[in-house]
Amino acid sequence: MTTPGTLYGVGVGPGDPELMTVKAWRLLATAKVIAYLAANGSDSTARSIAAPFLPDDAQEISIDVPMRTEREPAQAAYDLGAAEIATHLARGHDVVMLCEGDPFFYGSFMYVFERLAGSFDCVVVPGVTSVAACAAELRQPLCRRDDVLKVLPATLDADRLRDELLTCQTAAIIKVGRHFQKVKQVLSALDLITHATAITKATQQDQAIQPVEAIASDSLPYFTTIIVKV
Amino acid sequence: MTTPGTLYGVGVGPGDPELMTVKAWRLLATAKVIAYLAANGSDSTARSIAAPFLPDDAQEISIDVPMRTEREPAQAAYDLGAAEIATHLARGHDVVMLCEGDPFFYGSFMYVFERLAGSFDCVVVPGVTSVAACAAELRQPLCRRDDVLKVLPATLDADRLRDELLTCQTAAIIKVGRHFQKVKQVLSALDLITHATAITKATQQDQAIQPVEAIASDSLPYFTTIIVKV
Repeated sequence: MTTPGTLYGVGVGPGDPELMTVKAWRLLATAKVIAYLAANGSDSTARSIAAPFLPDDAQEISIDVPMRTEREPAQAAYDLGAAEIATHLARGHDVVMLCEGDPFFYGSFMYVFERLAGSFDCVVVPGVTSVAACAAELRQPLCRRDDVLKVLPATLDADRLRDELLTCQTAAIIKVGRHFQKVKQVLSALDLITHATAITKATQQDQAIQPVEAIASDSLPYFTTIIVKV
Repeated sequence: MTTPGTLYGVGVGPGDPELMTVKAWRLLATAKVIAYLAANGSDSTARSIAAPFLPDDAQEISIDVPMRTEREPAQAAYDLGAAEIATHLARGHDVVMLCEGDPFFYGSFMYVFERLAGSFDCVVVPGVTSVAACAAELRQPLCRRDDVLKVLPATLDADRLRDELLTCQTAAIIKVGRHFQKVKQVLSALDLITHATAITKATQQDQAIQPVEAIASDSLPYFTTIIVKV
C-alpha cells in the first residue's frame, strides 16, 4: 500500500520573493506538485511571488476561484481543487500549496485545509504577513509594550470600525478596496485621518504608499491596508 | 568622506531557523557586524535562532538590556548599544541587527531604530511573527473573511481583556508569563476557557502546547501566547 503524501500549506510572504522563508524555499525547490489559487481566472499572486524559486519540472494545479459575494461558486471550486490535490496525495506525492502572506491569516488555504486535514497529513509553514510588511515599508513600529493591535477587515460597518478604533493603539484595516470612502469617513470623524496611511501591495513591485488624507478617489485596490496609529 | 553604513533591522522569525526569510539569510551571510539584544545578561534568543546562519568572522555587538519594571536602566542600555552601532555605521560599515519574530511587532529593535533612524539609513526586514507560528503549530486558521483579530498583551487589566474579548473572533494574548491566572479567570468568566490554547516558544525546540483549562500552575513562561477562538 502506498503511503499517502503530505499537504504543505506554505506562506510565500507579502510580495518580495526574498521575503519567503528558507523553509518555503526548500520545500518549493524540491516540489513535484505545486498548487495555488487563481482568483477569477487571473494569474495567481502567490505563484508570481514564488516564481523565481519554482522548479521547471513541477506539475501545477491552478484552482480557479470565482470571487463573488455569493459563496457557492467558490465553495464548488474549493471542492474541485481539493479533490485534485487529494488524488496526488493518495498516490503518495507531496503537494506544496502556495499562499500569499501567511496561510492562516485571512488566507484561502484554510478552505482547502479543512477539506483535506481529516484525511491527510498537513503541515503549515507560516509566512510574513502583509501587515508586518506594511510596518517595515512605512518605517513605523506597529506596536510596543502594552499596545493593543487590531486587524479590522474594511467590510465591517462604520459603527463597528469606530468602536474598535476607539480602543486600540494601532489598527491595520485590511482589504480596503471599494470600502475606502466608509473607512475615510470613520477616520475623519475620529480625527484620526492624519494618523492613517494606505499601503497597496506592500513590497510588491507596484507598491504604493499614500497618506489617507491625500487620497481623492472613492476606492482603492483590494490589496490595500490602512495602518492607523491611534 | 566615508559613506555611512546602513542599519538593517532583521526579523529572524519565531524560533525555527528555517522560518527566517531568504532576505534575512542573505543579509546575515554577508554581514561584517551583527548586533542583538540579550535580556538580563542571558543568551540572546535572536542570536540563537540565527546561529546556523551566522558567519564565522562577523564582529558581534551584544546589547545587554536589564528587563525590569522601571524603564531607566533599559533606556540607558539602548543608548549605549545605539552609540556602539553608530560608531560602526559612521565608519561605513553596515550593521545587521537580529530581532526575534518581526522587528516592529512588539520588538525591542524599535528602541535602537528611534535612536538612529534620524542619522543613518535604516532598512527593516519583516519576519514571521510568533502569532502566525502559533496558528501553524496549532493547525488552526487564525482568522477568515470579516473576522476581527486582536493582539492583547497579558499586562492589560482584567476588565479591559474582557471587553476586548467580547468583540472579536480571534485573540492572541501575548507575553502571558506571570499574568496567567488573571487571563485564565477572564477566560473562565466568559466561558471561553475551552476555546483557549497556550503555546510556549512556538517552533522553538522546547515548544509546549497546552489547553488552558488543563494548566494548573499560576504562571507560564514569558514567551507564551494564548490563542482564543471566540
